[in-house]
Amino acid sequence: MRVVAKFGGTSLGTGERINRAADSIADAVEAGHQIAVVASAMGSTTDELIDDIEFDVSDEDRAEIVSMGERTSVRMLKAALGARDVDALFLEPGSEQWPIITNDRGEVVVEATQERATELAAQLDGVVPVITGFLAESDAGDITTLGRGGSDTTAVMLGNYMNADEVVIVTDVEGVMTGDPRVVEGARNVGRISVDELRNLSFRGAEVVAPSALSYKNEHLDVRVVHYQHGDLLTGGTQIEGEFENLIDMQEQRLACLTVAGRSIRNSPGILAELSDALRAAEINIDAVASGMDSITFYVNSDLADEAEPVLHDQVVSGTTLSSVTVEDDIAVIRVTGGELPNRPGVIQTVLTPIAEAGINLHNVITSATSIALFVAWEDREETLEIVQNEV
Amino acid sequence: MRVVAKFGGTSLGTGERINRAADSIADAVEAGHQIAVVASAMGSTTDELIDDIEFDVSDEDRAEIVSMGERTSVRMLKAALGARDVDALFLEPGSEQWPIITNDRGEVVVEATQERATELAAQLDGVVPVITGFLAESDAGDITTLGRGGSDTTAVMLGNYMNADEVVIVTDVEGVMTGDPRVVEGARNVGRISVDELRNLSFRGAEVVAPSALSYKNEHLDVRVVHYQHGDLLTGGTQIEGEFENLIDMQEQRLACLTVAGRSIRNSPGILAELSDALRAAEINIDAVASGMDSITFYVNSDLADEAEPVLHDQVVSGTTLSSVTVEDDIAVIRVTGGELPNRPGVIQTVLTPIAEAGINLHNVITSATSIALFVAWEDREETLEIVQNEV
Repeated sequence: MRVVAKFGGTSLGTGERINRAADSIADAVEAGHQIAVVASAMGSTTDELIDDIEFDVSDEDRAEIVSMGERTSVRMLKAALGARDVDALFLEPGSEQWPIITNDRGEVVVEATQERATELAAQLDGVVPVITGFLAESDAGDITTLGRGGSDTTAVMLGNYMNADEVVIVTDVEGVMTGDPRVVEGARNVGRISVDELRNLSFRGAEVVAPSALSYKNEHLDVRVVHYQHGDLLTGGTQIEGEFENLIDMQEQRLACLTVAGRSIRNSPGILAELSDALRAAEINIDAVASGMDSITFYVNSDLADEAEPVLHDQVVSGTTLSSVTVEDDIAVIRVTGGELPNRPGVIQTVLTPIAEAGINLHNVITSATSIALFVAWEDREETLEIVQNEV
Repeated sequence: MRVVAKFGGTSLGTGERINRAADSIADAVEAGHQIAVVASAMGSTTDELIDDIEFDVSDEDRAEIVSMGERTSVRMLKAALGARDVDALFLEPGSEQWPIITNDRGEVVVEATQERATELAAQLDGVVPVITGFLAESDAGDITTLGRGGSDTTAVMLGNYMNADEVVIVTDVEGVMTGDPRVVEGARNVGRISVDELRNLSFRGAEVVAPSALSYKNEHLDVRVVHYQHGDLLTGGTQIEGEFENLIDMQEQRLACLTVAGRSIRNSPGILAELSDALRAAEINIDAVASGMDSITFYVNSDLADEAEPVLHDQVVSGTTLSSVTVEDDIAVIRVTGGELPNRPGVIQTVLTPIAEAGINLHNVITSATSIALFVAWEDREETLEIVQNEV
């Protein structure tokens, strides 16, 4: 099996941990696997280096200084592997076999990088390359960086371009957990999770794998997250499934929009539960939901609107909080998923501006951490789709 | 009491209905009230006139033709009132006492209109003015129109500027209903409803009073909707409460964002009910909710996050659909309510563009029929508020 193993800063934070990392690599090589290693800077080295730059500095000089953390790590690991009779070499920007090439803005030059990664992959039988994460080399020969979470990106990108079977992210968490073990009881490893789910969680506080790295995940490349204390590279942890999809999806089904109005719904505990309970009891699936100050809007399959309306109306007349329900038919939804959407400032607006300019009325906009859902009149759907396809 | 009574097209659709309308006006005058009447075109007169324009026509000529429906109505009603010994006069654009002045784009010239409305109000003791709805006069003396739902606007605007106690909208529905009587059983009049609730319903299918008219509703002006068959102007129907507010509201409370990820949540009936049920059982109020493809996001008061997290986690581990819950703290929400928001193409984008340009990351955007909620990091809230205040 061909494996790219990435060791995060914490997993290399002490001499003992470096030994443990080297042991796990040596075991995998011993078992006959091809291993490439990506290493982050040890512990918080990089932050400390940045803190120490108390003078004016050029971008090039700054990258040279910041790079020293990773460059130290790879030397350390290479030596630790040598002590275990594993033939290893360290690779840093400037090394002859260095694989990752960017332009001077740090954007990966795909063709050159693929070519170099392929060459590197061809040599894995005899030697373990230990590669600096986060760093890259510009086509002019300067050191560049891949941005936040860059070591994860290095690993998954190389896994992809080196045609690896698996990327193993060795980190300081027990894979992806069902919840935060410091807060909830009974948190356990989820075992497996899809790329889109993980991206949702990552953008919203629980960053296990950098979202930007996941854009290199494809269907054939396994990605697994394991705790550094686990000691075995090839088992355990959380399996990340599926592939990164940059999707523009227009639902073929007409939706109906049911709006329930009620004064200060927002401050009425339990209202959402009552309404969604009632819809569940009637076996009506809620396609989307959004709440306002004085209203809650449910989108359901158009065919179900006639069923859903009396269900919600019963809730309206049985209490005092809600005043009325109304239905609007023939709504279409177009969902944009993936990329850095919508967590990059301006992305939502990039999509909305041309829609506004075309005079298309947006019935609703609901964003999640990784998608934007645009609700428009059914008759506007083709034009909206075309605009979105041109912009994203 | 000073009352502006507006009669919609259906309520004047036949000779019998005109008699009924005149009776109700005469009764109110007899009871000692000051009445001003606003009349729409009878039945579908205006649509028929528009259908008949099968030739090229200037804007001025078109307005002259289209205006004939209302101009016929006011003559009809004035005569019917005369037959009941009620002293009435009809007012149309061009009449000496005509109150509503716009520029040539149909935008109301507030000062001139207020002045003329005040003069008209001073004469209500002796005479009932019957005023063409929908129409206005430009300062150049041409006929202009107030746009869709314009007769409602005429009525509520005059009610406001004439310092009336009440505006009565006489229409062909039984006020605002809890649901559509053609679809649900047991639909009943809601009795009273707030301006914002009504606007939510109006933008989403159930237009009882034109949303644009409600922008003239203030706290001191009662607005009531009654069915034309009711026969009594001064009782019954639905009371519209409160005033139109164009609000930019920044919640002083920090929010926490709880994101629950699960594959194809969107296609899993009952998930929303389960999660919101669990939060209700723990007495945790949901401030806002939005659903994505593979995730549902709940915003709750920050103080409740530590309570909410284990509640949602229990749901995650007790089933197979959900994979994980994560929490992000220190979220602020800024809500923009009112105006034609967000149903006017481009309004959402007007707000989002400068936010994007300022490099502020939008955590989430949730729109309703009458509001936009912008979720940003707590530290970005002041800057976001300032931008929104400058743009709306």
